[in-house]
Amino acid sequence: MTQETQFVLNSFSFLIWGVLIMWMCAGFTMLESGSVRTKNASVICLKNVGLYAIAGLMFYLVGYNLMYVDVGNLIGSLRLGYGASASEAALLGGDAGASATVLDNGNSVMSDWFFQMVFVATTASIVSGTLAERVRLWSFFIFVTVLTGFIYPVIGAWTWGGGWLSQMGFQDFAGSTVVHSTGGWAALAGAIVVGARHGKFREDGSVRATPPSNVPVVTLGVFILWMGWFAFNGGSQLALSGVADAVAISNILVNTNLAACGGFVAAIVISRPLLGRVDLLASLNGAIAGLVSITAGPDIVAHYWAIIIGAVGGSICALGMKMLEHLRIDDVVGAVSAHLLAGIWGTLAVCIVAGGNLLVQLAGVAAVGAFAFSASMLVWLAIRQLMGVRVGIDVERHGQDVAELGIEAYPEFVVLQDPEEV
Amino acid sequence: MTQETQFVLNSFSFLIWGVLIMWMCAGFTMLESGSVRTKNASVICLKNVGLYAIAGLMFYLVGYNLMYVDVGNLIGSLRLGYGASASEAALLGGDAGASATVLDNGNSVMSDWFFQMVFVATTASIVSGTLAERVRLWSFFIFVTVLTGFIYPVIGAWTWGGGWLSQMGFQDFAGSTVVHSTGGWAALAGAIVVGARHGKFREDGSVRATPPSNVPVVTLGVFILWMGWFAFNGGSQLALSGVADAVAISNILVNTNLAACGGFVAAIVISRPLLGRVDLLASLNGAIAGLVSITAGPDIVAHYWAIIIGAVGGSICALGMKMLEHLRIDDVVGAVSAHLLAGIWGTLAVCIVAGGNLLVQLAGVAAVGAFAFSASMLVWLAIRQLMGVRVGIDVERHGQDVAELGIEAYPEFVVLQDPEEV
Amino acid sequence: MTQETQFVLNSFSFLIWGVLIMWMCAGFTMLESGSVRTKNASVICLKNVGLYAIAGLMFYLVGYNLMYVDVGNLIGSLRLGYGASASEAALLGGDAGASATVLDNGNSVMSDWFFQMVFVATTASIVSGTLAERVRLWSFFIFVTVLTGFIYPVIGAWTWGGGWLSQMGFQDFAGSTVVHSTGGWAALAGAIVVGARHGKFREDGSVRATPPSNVPVVTLGVFILWMGWFAFNGGSQLALSGVADAVAISNILVNTNLAACGGFVAAIVISRPLLGRVDLLASLNGAIAGLVSITAGPDIVAHYWAIIIGAVGGSICALGMKMLEHLRIDDVVGAVSAHLLAGIWGTLAVCIVAGGNLLVQLAGVAAVGAFAFSASMLVWLAIRQLMGVRVGIDVERHGQDVAELGIEAYPEFVVLQDPEEV
Repeated sequence: MTQETQFVLNSFSFLIWGVLIMWMCAGFTMLESGSVRTKNASVICLKNVGLYAIAGLMFYLVGYNLMYVDVGNLIGSLRLGYGASASEAALLGGDAGASATVLDNGNSVMSDWFFQMVFVATTASIVSGTLAERVRLWSFFIFVTVLTGFIYPVIGAWTWGGGWLSQMGFQDFAGSTVVHSTGGWAALAGAIVVGARHGKFREDGSVRATPPSNVPVVTLGVFILWMGWFAFNGGSQLALSGVADAVAISNILVNTNLAACGGFVAAIVISRPLLGRVDLLASLNGAIAGLVSITAGPDIVAHYWAIIIGAVGGSICALGMKMLEHLRIDDVVGAVSAHLLAGIWGTLAVCIVAGGNLLVQLAGVAAVGAFAFSASMLVWLAIRQLMGVRVGIDVERHGQDVAELGIEAYPEFVVLQDPEEV
Repeated sequence: MTQETQFVLNSFSFLIWGVLIMWMCAGFTMLESGSVRTKNASVICLKNVGLYAIAGLMFYLVGYNLMYVDVGNLIGSLRLGYGASASEAALLGGDAGASATVLDNGNSVMSDWFFQMVFVATTASIVSGTLAERVRLWSFFIFVTVLTGFIYPVIGAWTWGGGWLSQMGFQDFAGSTVVHSTGGWAALAGAIVVGARHGKFREDGSVRATPPSNVPVVTLGVFILWMGWFAFNGGSQLALSGVADAVAISNILVNTNLAACGGFVAAIVISRPLLGRVDLLASLNGAIAGLVSITAGPDIVAHYWAIIIGAVGGSICALGMKMLEHLRIDDVVGAVSAHLLAGIWGTLAVCIVAGGNLLVQLAGVAAVGAFAFSASMLVWLAIRQLMGVRVGIDVERHGQDVAELGIEAYPEFVVLQDPEEV
Repeated sequence: MTQETQFVLNSFSFLIWGVLIMWMCAGFTMLESGSVRTKNASVICLKNVGLYAIAGLMFYLVGYNLMYVDVGNLIGSLRLGYGASASEAALLGGDAGASATVLDNGNSVMSDWFFQMVFVATTASIVSGTLAERVRLWSFFIFVTVLTGFIYPVIGAWTWGGGWLSQMGFQDFAGSTVVHSTGGWAALAGAIVVGARHGKFREDGSVRATPPSNVPVVTLGVFILWMGWFAFNGGSQLALSGVADAVAISNILVNTNLAACGGFVAAIVISRPLLGRVDLLASLNGAIAGLVSITAGPDIVAHYWAIIIGAVGGSICALGMKMLEHLRIDDVVGAVSAHLLAGIWGTLAVCIVAGGNLLVQLAGVAAVGAFAFSASMLVWLAIRQLMGVRVGIDVERHGQDVAELGIEAYPEFVVLQDPEEV
C-alpha cells in the first residue's frame, strides 16, 4: 500500500464512520421522543437537533483545540476556530508540491475533526434523555454549550489528547468513560439539580409509571444506535491503512455486536424476576448497556468475553434502573444506568479480561467522574441561579410542547387525560 | 493494486455493507410494527430486536461453522464458537511476520463472519412478519434459535458453503432461494401450524380486513429495506479487489434498483384491476418482491431485464397475496408472497435470462423448499407439543402487548375498539 | 496509488455515497408525511416511493443520455436506455484484456449513473412536499415523469453535462441551483397552477394554521436529510483517487455540517421576533436551508464562511416562509423557501465568498429559473387541461388517503374532527 492509498483510506474511514455516528443523534432523538409522554415529544426533538448544532459549532470554535492541539497534561490550546493545515490549503489551491507534507499527517486534518465532532454530540445526547419533561429548553442549550465546548474537551485532553491519564496508561478505546460516563455524570448532576418530574415519586414512596408514548419509535432509536455503534467503535481504530487495521476493525465490529446481543439477552432474562415481567425497555436498554460496556476494549477481548461483558453490562443497567428509582433520581430513559454504570463496568472489564493496570483504570474512572460530575453540577447550579433550570408546574402539567413551542407533537390525535395531572 | 490494498478493501467492503444489512432488521421491524394492529406493535418490536440478538449469538456459537467450515456435501463442522485465525491473532499481538499468512486469506476472517451473520438475521426477520399477532413470544424465539443455528446454516452449506447444490452448479448470487425462500418456507410452515388470527377468515368465506395501523412507519421500513438491499446484493460480490469487482458491484446496484422500480410500478398498476383500488401495501410489497426477484442474479442480467424480472416479481407478489387469502393462510405482512414466491421466480429467472441449467435451478428450489419447509414444520410442531405456539383467545383479543409485556405501544392515544373483538 | 486502486475507490465512492443519497428519499417522505394532516399521510408516502421509482426508470430510459451523453450546448443524446460500456461487458465476460480500456474511464460507468440517478430523485422529492394535500396522485406522477426524464436532465446538460452554462464558467458544485432551485421552481409552478388548499387562506386575509401531524416523524426526516447531505456534497467531488480528493471531501463534509448548524441556530433565533415563538419547523427548515445554501460551494469556502452562509440561508428561509404566506402561495412544508430561495442565495454566495463571476452566477440562476419554471408551468397546465391536477373539494375534506387509496394512515387512532372542515 502506498502512503497515498493509506492517506485516502484513513480519511475516508473517518468520514464514512463519522456520518454513521452523526446518525446516532437521530437514534437518541427517536429513543427519547418515543420515551417521553406525548406532551413533551416536540421539545425533546428540538433539543436533540439543537444539541447537535451547538456541539458542532462549539467543537469548531473551541472544543477541538482544547482537546487535541498542543495538549500538555491538562488542556490543549485556547485558540479560536480550527481548520485545514497550510499545506492542505496549498494542495487544494493547486500546489501539488504540498502533497508530501499533507501525506505525512496520515489522514486529512478535517476528517479527524469530523470524526471527533460527532463523538461530542453523543455525549450531549445522553444528557437530554435523563432530563426530559422538565428541564427548560434554553437552560439545556446553555448547559450543552459548556459541556461540548469545555467539559468534554478537557476530559478528552486528559485521555485521547495525550494528557495525564493517557500518560498513566489509561485504556479507553472508544469511550466507555470518555464519552458515555462523561455524559452519564453530566446527566446525573442535572437530574439532581433539576429534580424529579412532578409526581414521579409519590408521597407514599411508590413510583409513578411513565411508560413510553410511542414504542415503535423507541425501537427504531435503539436500532439506529446499535447500527451507529459499529461506526463508533470501528472508526475508533483511527486508521484503515493496512492489514492490521482491517483485522482489528473486523474484530471490533463482531465484538460490538456480540456484546449488544449479550446485553439484550441478559436484560430480558433478568427483567422477569427483577421487574415482574418481560420488560421491553429494560431489554432495549440492556442492548445499549452491552454496547457501552464493550466500548472501552472492543479491539482486545475475545469474542466470548464480549458476550459476557455485554451480558454483565445489561444486567447492571437493569439493576441500576431499579436502584435509581429507589434513590428517587428521575432518569426518564435510563441513560445514567445504560451509559454511566455500564461505562464504568466496561472500563474496568477491559482490564480484567485483557490485562492492564486496574488501579489506573480505577483512577481514570474516578478522575473523570469527579471532574465531569462536579463541573456539571457547578454549571447546572449557576444556570439555576441565573435563569432557572426547570419549567413551572403548569408547564409541566400541560406539557412543554404547548408551553415552550406552541405546538403539539401529535395535534390531531386524541390523547388520554392523565388522571394525576388534571 | 497490492495484495494488502485488496485485503483492506475486501474486508472493508464486507463490513460497511454488513452494517447496512444489519440496518435491514430495523426495516423489517418498522414494516411489521406499522402493519400490525396497535395492540401488538410492542411485541413485534421486541421480537425483531430479539431475533437479531439470537441470530448473532447462534451464528457465532454454531451456525457459521455448520455453514462454512469443512463443508462436505451436506454440512460443515459441529465445533462450538468461531474466531479470528491464529495468524490474525499473532498479527494483532504484534507479530508482523504473520501478515503474509493473513493476507493469503484475501479478507479478514471476521469481516466475512460479520457479513454472513447479518444475512441469517434477514431470514429470521421474514418469519416474524407472517406470524405476527398470534405467535407466542418465547415460542417464536425458540424457533428462531433453531432456524438461525441449524436450518439456515444447513441450506447455506449446500449452496454458498460449497456443498452438493453448489457442486451441481446451482446459481443464487445473493440469496433469492438461500435467504428469502428459506425464510418464506419457514414462515409458511409456521402459518400452517400456528393457524390464522382469530376472526381473520370468517365463517361466510369473507376475509376480514386488518389494515396497517401506522402507514408512515411501514413506508419507512420499505425505504430501509430498499436501501439495505444495495448492500445485500452489492456486498455479495464478496470482494472489492479490482476493476472487475468495481464494475460488477456497480451493475448490481443499478439492477437492484431497477428491479425494485419495476416491481413497484407493476404492482401499483396491477392492484387496480386485481384488488379494486390503487393499493399502497401491494405496491410496497411489489417493490420488495422486485428486490427479492433480482437477488439471484443481479450481476449477470442486462438492465432492461432487471426491470422485467422485478415487474414480474411484483405481479407475482400481488397475485400471491390474493391466493394466500383464498387458501385461508394468514400472512400478516405478505412475506410469503414477497419472499418465497418472488424468491422462486428470481431463482428461475436468472437462468431464463442469463443462461444456465434450469433443471439445476429447479432442483435447488425444490430441495431447499423440501428441507426448509419440513424441518420448520417439525420444529413448529415440536414447539406446539412442548409449550404451545399461539397465545390464548383472550390475549389475541386484548393484544399481545398488554398480555405478554404489560405495556401498550401507544398508551396515551385513544384507539378505536374493534367491533368484532369486543 | 495505482490506476486500478483509483478506479475502485472512485467507483466505490459513487456507490456508497449514492446509497446514502437514496436514503434522502426516506427523509423527504418522513418530513412530508409528518407535516401533512393525518388524512393525507398515506398518499404522501405513496407519492414519495412512486417518485423514486419513476425517477429511476426515467433516468435509465432517457434522462441520463439527455444530460450526459454527447452534450452540445443544450442537450445530450435522445437515445433510449443506458448501460455499461462494451469494454466493461467484455471484462465481466472474462476478457481480462479489456481492463485497460475500462480503467481509462476512471470509474465504472454505472457507478456514475447510480450517483446521478439519486440526484434526480431529490429534485422530484422537493415538489411533492409543496403540493401535498391537494394534488392528484396520478397527475403528480405524470409531472414527475416529465421532470425527471426531461426538465431536470436538460438543466443538467447545460451545467454538469458540459453545456452552455458550464462553458460560461457557472459554478454549482453539488446543485444549489441544478437540483434544489430546479425542484423549487417546479414546486412553485405547481403551487400556482394547483392552487392553495381549500380554506388555507381565509376571506378575511388570515392564514389558517395547519400544524404537522407527527413531529417526531418530521424530525426523523430532517436527520435523514442532514445525514444524506454529507453524501450529496461529499460525493459530488466525483472522485476518491488521491490525497487532494480526500482533503477536499473532508472539508466539504465539515462545511456542510457547519452550514446546517448555522442555519438551524439562525432560524431558531430569528423565529422568536419573526413568528412570535421559538418555532420548531422554522428551525428545522433553517437547517435544511443551511444545507441547500452551502451546496453550491462546500469545497471552496472557509469554515467560518460556511457558518455564515448557512445562517443567512436559514434566515432567508424563515423570511421566505412568511413571505409566501403573504403572497397566498400554499407550500405545505416550506420547500420553496428552503430549496429555491436558499438555493439562489447559495449559488450567489459561493461567488461572493470564494471569488468568481457574479454575473455568470446570476445568469445561471436566471436561465435555470426561467426554464425550470416555464417548462414546469406548461406541463402543469397541460396536465390540468387533460386530466385535472387537484382533487375535488370532498376528497380534500375527507382526505386523499380514504378517497384515493381506500385506507387511512392511522386507522385505529381517534383523530380530532377539524371544525373548519366538517
